[in-house]
Amino acid sequence: MTAATWAEVPKGSPFPLQNLPYGVFTPAGDTRARVGVAIGAHVLDVAAVLGDDTFAHGALNPFLAQGRARWTAVRAELTALLTDARHRAAVTPHLHPLDAVTLHLPFEVADYVDFYASEHHAANVGRMFRPGAEPLTPQWKHLPIGYHGRAGTVVASGTPVVRPCGQKKPGAAGELPGFGPSARLDIEAEVGFVVGTGSALGTPVGTDAFAEHVFGVCLVNDWSARDVQAWEYVPLGPFLAKSFATSVSPWIVPLEALEAARVTPPERAHALRPYLRETEDWGLDLRLEVRLNGQPVSRPPFSAMYWTGAQMLAHMTVNGASLRTGDLYASGTVSGPEPGERGCLMELTWGGEEPLKLADGTSRAFLEDGDEVTITATAPGADGTVIGFGEVTGKILPAVAGGRS
Amino acid sequence: MTAATWAEVPKGSPFPLQNLPYGVFTPAGDTRARVGVAIGAHVLDVAAVLGDDTFAHGALNPFLAQGRARWTAVRAELTALLTDARHRAAVTPHLHPLDAVTLHLPFEVADYVDFYASEHHAANVGRMFRPGAEPLTPQWKHLPIGYHGRAGTVVASGTPVVRPCGQKKPGAAGELPGFGPSARLDIEAEVGFVVGTGSALGTPVGTDAFAEHVFGVCLVNDWSARDVQAWEYVPLGPFLAKSFATSVSPWIVPLEALEAARVTPPERAHALRPYLRETEDWGLDLRLEVRLNGQPVSRPPFSAMYWTGAQMLAHMTVNGASLRTGDLYASGTVSGPEPGERGCLMELTWGGEEPLKLADGTSRAFLEDGDEVTITATAPGADGTVIGFGEVTGKILPAVAGGRS
Repeated sequence: MTAATWAEVPKGSPFPLQNLPYGVFTPAGDTRARVGVAIGAHVLDVAAVLGDDTFAHGALNPFLAQGRARWTAVRAELTALLTDARHRAAVTPHLHPLDAVTLHLPFEVADYVDFYASEHHAANVGRMFRPGAEPLTPQWKHLPIGYHGRAGTVVASGTPVVRPCGQKKPGAAGELPGFGPSARLDIEAEVGFVVGTGSALGTPVGTDAFAEHVFGVCLVNDWSARDVQAWEYVPLGPFLAKSFATSVSPWIVPLEALEAARVTPPERAHALRPYLRETEDWGLDLRLEVRLNGQPVSRPPFSAMYWTGAQMLAHMTVNGASLRTGDLYASGTVSGPEPGERGCLMELTWGGEEPLKLADGTSRAFLEDGDEVTITATAPGADGTVIGFGEVTGKILPAVAGGRS
Repeated sequence: MTAATWAEVPKGSPFPLQNLPYGVFTPAGDTRARVGVAIGAHVLDVAAVLGDDTFAHGALNPFLAQGRARWTAVRAELTALLTDARHRAAVTPHLHPLDAVTLHLPFEVADYVDFYASEHHAANVGRMFRPGAEPLTPQWKHLPIGYHGRAGTVVASGTPVVRPCGQKKPGAAGELPGFGPSARLDIEAEVGFVVGTGSALGTPVGTDAFAEHVFGVCLVNDWSARDVQAWEYVPLGPFLAKSFATSVSPWIVPLEALEAARVTPPERAHALRPYLRETEDWGLDLRLEVRLNGQPVSRPPFSAMYWTGAQMLAHMTVNGASLRTGDLYASGTVSGPEPGERGCLMELTWGGEEPLKLADGTSRAFLEDGDEVTITATAPGADGTVIGFGEVTGKILPAVAGGRS
């Protein structure tokens, strides 16, 4: 049955009743952050409308920790409040215009893990970084490769990104390494999974427990300094090339809003180890868009990802590693098979060799100071609606002058 | 002037007055954890003796956040209380026998970073993993290589370690990867640095601000599954091979207790970038000992480390990454130049090819179920004393039977 909301939802809004993504906001003229859900051009104050202190926090974590049954119950309650016109008078005072609130980082990040789950991205990177070798490393199609990132520098959408400084490969063997502002500053358009309920140390979490542990999905921009990365990453992986900032969207779309977006992931090249087999399809038909200074430069399809969020979760815990409320794991760059579907500049400009031409007549190999990057996404929602993810955005500020070298 | 304590400090105790390491404990018959300092064979209840709620927590974090001036003041106050005999009657009721208290993980870990700062270790690993190539990667002597680990699986000393399962390299090209309990389970004897005060995003922290941000030092055992690591680690570094458990000692030795342990680090092969140059020597003369089932198997010297804790801190933040109270960064395996000074079994047994002979007549290539590994350390203290670090210990439990494969 199609539920209709009494709330005003402008045509084309990313936030129909069937979405109800969670965020943390401060109303205009107020100082206390609290949990809200987006509906149309408004945010509903969940703490106020439910009279529940779980939501009177500057982070979703207390709610995330309550688990799937509670997430379902609250979603049903909010849907009822926004559907039954008898609640309209009581609820309306708790609707704040979205353009008049401040949005925050929606949850306290416990551990942050970044995967490498797009075959197209990994193969493109392999071709550029290891020319002549097989584009994918031997284990790539047997397990979702991942690594830990810096949780403390996960920032809210809109936080400016200061161009990082770092060491770079020497010009010639025997020379000392260079140092300075990254000249190959890049984005990575990614999808993030937010863990609600934790797990016990020593107990793997199976693919079939995905919806029990994962609350929802957000957008992630994993800013990357490619010149720093090239010099530092062998043998222990990326470190300073990534740890200066990772931006996340203000809205966490609940898994329940994505039922209609579930798709079968691409065919697998090999039989998978039982712990990576899925009994349900957790591919997701999210369509991302990357805009550079307002101009669309890529449309990465998340449905093309080789590994699903459920497989990433199972792999991350198969060694007994525990989960905590607030863990964030991201997909890695989302790239599709077509050139216009690549989720980072390194791929879009083929290592900087084929600069992007922008509408203002300029071109870009990598990001310049003042550039603003915005990632959005949509997915099919229930009742033929379109689920929007809002956006994750960030502007590049110049490197700190006079910094240590 | 040499201060003498009225408290009983048995000869050879790791905890003389000049040490006063901080931990978190629960007294026998009580349920509330609080902060204590070790003195002789006792732990002093700091919350009770100072009547200060900062210490009435199950983690050091509130105290860590207060900063260097406060750390110095509290240390002076505790030293005075334990020195001036007039306080004896008032303080004595707050001394609990160490063997009757429960010790906990001493702080909530924010981000965990692991470095690779021993030249001897890195060169040995290079020889084994990349035979025929230069043992050290080209950047090794230009920057301290590091990567992020899993903060959520940093556990207190004594926590049993369940043998992890994972994928392993296929026997031959074209075969499917293996899966099962790690058959090459290893330790890494490391030294950890505990960050007290945080820093602002975008602002590097210099080597000269080391003592302003770092509160103290602990021991770390970074358990490692070498077979899992060999299959997973290219190109993004170690992940599941490390994330199942990292054990830390219950006592954090304040930097102030290590003044007499400061030494000049080894001579550098190259001129270093200014941000890595030190105006003070932060090499530390810590002498580690690794015991396997009670038998000493290695004595790694921390003074042989190429990179110091101050350099690791400066490198970790040179890209503008912020620090948070509770950040833990570890040195990586501490190995000296001699065979008996290697800090992991992979080196001690040369990849398992030269098993260690134990006193009980058995031998070990890697860890067996039931094995217990204990790491201790000492350092020169003030007034000719010896500063002890207590111990970090853990016992291997069998892999979970019937686990997913």
